[in-house]
Amino acid sequence: MRKVAIVGGGLTKFGVRKATYKELAQEAGKAVFEDVPNLDKKDVDSLFLGSAASDRMAFQSYPAPLVAEQVGVQPNKVIMRTELACASGQAAMRAAYGSIASGLSDIALVMGVEKMNTPNMAETQTTMAAVMDREWDGVNGMSAPPFFALVMMRHMHEYGTTREQLGMVSVKNHDYSASNPFAQFQKKFTLEDVINSVEISKPIRLLDCSGITDGAGGIVMTSEDRAKEFTDTPVYIEGLAQCNMGSLVSNLPSLTTWKPMKKAFRAALMMAGKDIYDMAFAEVHDCFTIAEIIAYEDGGMCKKGEGGKFIEEGNPYVGGRLPVNTHGGLLGTGHPLGATSIAQTVEVIEQFRGEVPEERYVGGEWALTHNLSGNANVHSVLVFRRGG
Amino acid sequence: MRKVAIVGGGLTKFGVRKATYKELAQEAGKAVFEDVPNLDKKDVDSLFLGSAASDRMAFQSYPAPLVAEQVGVQPNKVIMRTELACASGQAAMRAAYGSIASGLSDIALVMGVEKMNTPNMAETQTTMAAVMDREWDGVNGMSAPPFFALVMMRHMHEYGTTREQLGMVSVKNHDYSASNPFAQFQKKFTLEDVINSVEISKPIRLLDCSGITDGAGGIVMTSEDRAKEFTDTPVYIEGLAQCNMGSLVSNLPSLTTWKPMKKAFRAALMMAGKDIYDMAFAEVHDCFTIAEIIAYEDGGMCKKGEGGKFIEEGNPYVGGRLPVNTHGGLLGTGHPLGATSIAQTVEVIEQFRGEVPEERYVGGEWALTHNLSGNANVHSVLVFRRGG
Repeated sequence: MRKVAIVGGGLTKFGVRKATYKELAQEAGKAVFEDVPNLDKKDVDSLFLGSAASDRMAFQSYPAPLVAEQVGVQPNKVIMRTELACASGQAAMRAAYGSIASGLSDIALVMGVEKMNTPNMAETQTTMAAVMDREWDGVNGMSAPPFFALVMMRHMHEYGTTREQLGMVSVKNHDYSASNPFAQFQKKFTLEDVINSVEISKPIRLLDCSGITDGAGGIVMTSEDRAKEFTDTPVYIEGLAQCNMGSLVSNLPSLTTWKPMKKAFRAALMMAGKDIYDMAFAEVHDCFTIAEIIAYEDGGMCKKGEGGKFIEEGNPYVGGRLPVNTHGGLLGTGHPLGATSIAQTVEVIEQFRGEVPEERYVGGEWALTHNLSGNANVHSVLVFRRGG
Repeated sequence: MRKVAIVGGGLTKFGVRKATYKELAQEAGKAVFEDVPNLDKKDVDSLFLGSAASDRMAFQSYPAPLVAEQVGVQPNKVIMRTELACASGQAAMRAAYGSIASGLSDIALVMGVEKMNTPNMAETQTTMAAVMDREWDGVNGMSAPPFFALVMMRHMHEYGTTREQLGMVSVKNHDYSASNPFAQFQKKFTLEDVINSVEISKPIRLLDCSGITDGAGGIVMTSEDRAKEFTDTPVYIEGLAQCNMGSLVSNLPSLTTWKPMKKAFRAALMMAGKDIYDMAFAEVHDCFTIAEIIAYEDGGMCKKGEGGKFIEEGNPYVGGRLPVNTHGGLLGTGHPLGATSIAQTVEVIEQFRGEVPEERYVGGEWALTHNLSGNANVHSVLVFRRGG
């Protein structure tokens, strides 16, 4: 099995963009090839595209060759789109990992592209509801905000997690996204702003939610032996795991303890031979504030039920015990489904290279990214090591 | 790199089914586990789901964990959906191949599920149009039948391919599907039936087209060293290739010569160290009759322009020089997008095991499957060897 390296990447500006799906792909492709100037497009033999909602939101049901054409590559080893809702980008990285590690692909472009702001936002909402089991959960109004509202309410009830502790996650992540040029929300908020923002699905308020975001990004993955052709600071994937449990909401064993998350963190770290506290920082899937609180717990950073205390005591901040979401998370940068994992990975690249603003610079040798998808029934984790 | 084996598989009945998307998944899962009785569901560590149109046709945008729950598995290594329009199932097999060959997965369930017949067939047609570039081709009415009509007309013009030769493809494939219990169309047709069937998009007639099909299937893939636990007749994947060229119809270098098809056939066969005529049979993507004619040519079975003559002279029949589409092809068995590649693979398994009716039995040691997708801008090829 060949070791797999990431040699560079780039993003579009995230936000409510006037660009179309294809224009976002073009813009991201340009950013990637500018970041990896030694890479000839002809040498890209594989394209893995993470895109969750192109069918319904961009009206494109076969976006992989569309994106290939937009960025100017003609893969002759592998081309496919991967979908795993909010983790679609990490699914693309995982498929690319297997393809490179096995020797099937040599140089893979891994893209994430999502166009979510459309003239008809009812269609966007309808699409998001289709993520749940339509026949049981979807028809009963279960989509992301109501599901995570149940989780938040239950967590507050079981563990005494406070409104303020939850709000601190949003404040922290917006603090970091304020200095992230790609972020949808380059603005800081106070705890009061969060707590008094409009109620979306009780007890979730607007600033507990990540955005509805247009955005795209890409990274270049290759084998260890090729990596040095393109960069002095390759990023190696040293661990990866993905665990699933259930689909229907009523079949989930618990709303507040995410067993597949615990398993995925443990397995990915074990593969890398590391502990969570060996990580210099972690980018976790904060689609809602409560998700980051649970990530502290089920990601092994603190005891169950102490996620609120964990942030209150200053641990997940830059300079704290384990900085979390240094790029601003999904709360701050936005959440263009398929592009989200790519943005997390670009943060890892830039941290390792020392290309982030000083106020949120961590650097280090090891980092972890995490995505959940759907009703938190699948968790995907990657562990990275700084090479060079 | 570990060698990858297929140890069994199963299908639902294809056709216009009253079953829902989830029920099709259940039914296929049952068939798979019955075919691999030694496999404990708990040992399935990965699920790769090929599904092209679940978002718009089944209103499910995150079908992978949905299918996992329906078939009773909880993957803890990899779970994802792959999409590549009509080749979505082969994309799933390719992702599984990389995952197993690299050692990331040990036992993967590879499923293809598609529900295409819905109460609102206008939605199905609209979805099919979204496969093309919406902004340039889709809005101008370009979907599968008009595109392949252009191809057929041009091929008849350039090479003198006759209406009768094209019709023979449909007659042959329906002859074989008549004895395939999974087929949507278990009925034989005469050449006259084909030529006089209703015109769909000139010069394409109804019996030149594959069906709009509900169906699902699955196979179990594992490494060579595990394969013997489950079967005496493993099927090894010895070659695989996938080539892309372009997206927009106006950017295709030729309508009638499919360069990525030539490249994909050559590369997959070269990886296996074999020639096309080393194959005992080949299952190719006959979404329309003209596609099989071009597969004879660009798949290297005959010279360019002689595809019509190739069938007229009896070559692609059982007992001929190279039997093609012994399971009845897409024309005869139907074309449930994500499940189509799985059905081709199940035919390979059954041929190698000697489980098909004598009238279309070929057996042998080597076989090839092919899928095209979209406007024939991506071609995917797998080369199989009979083990045991």
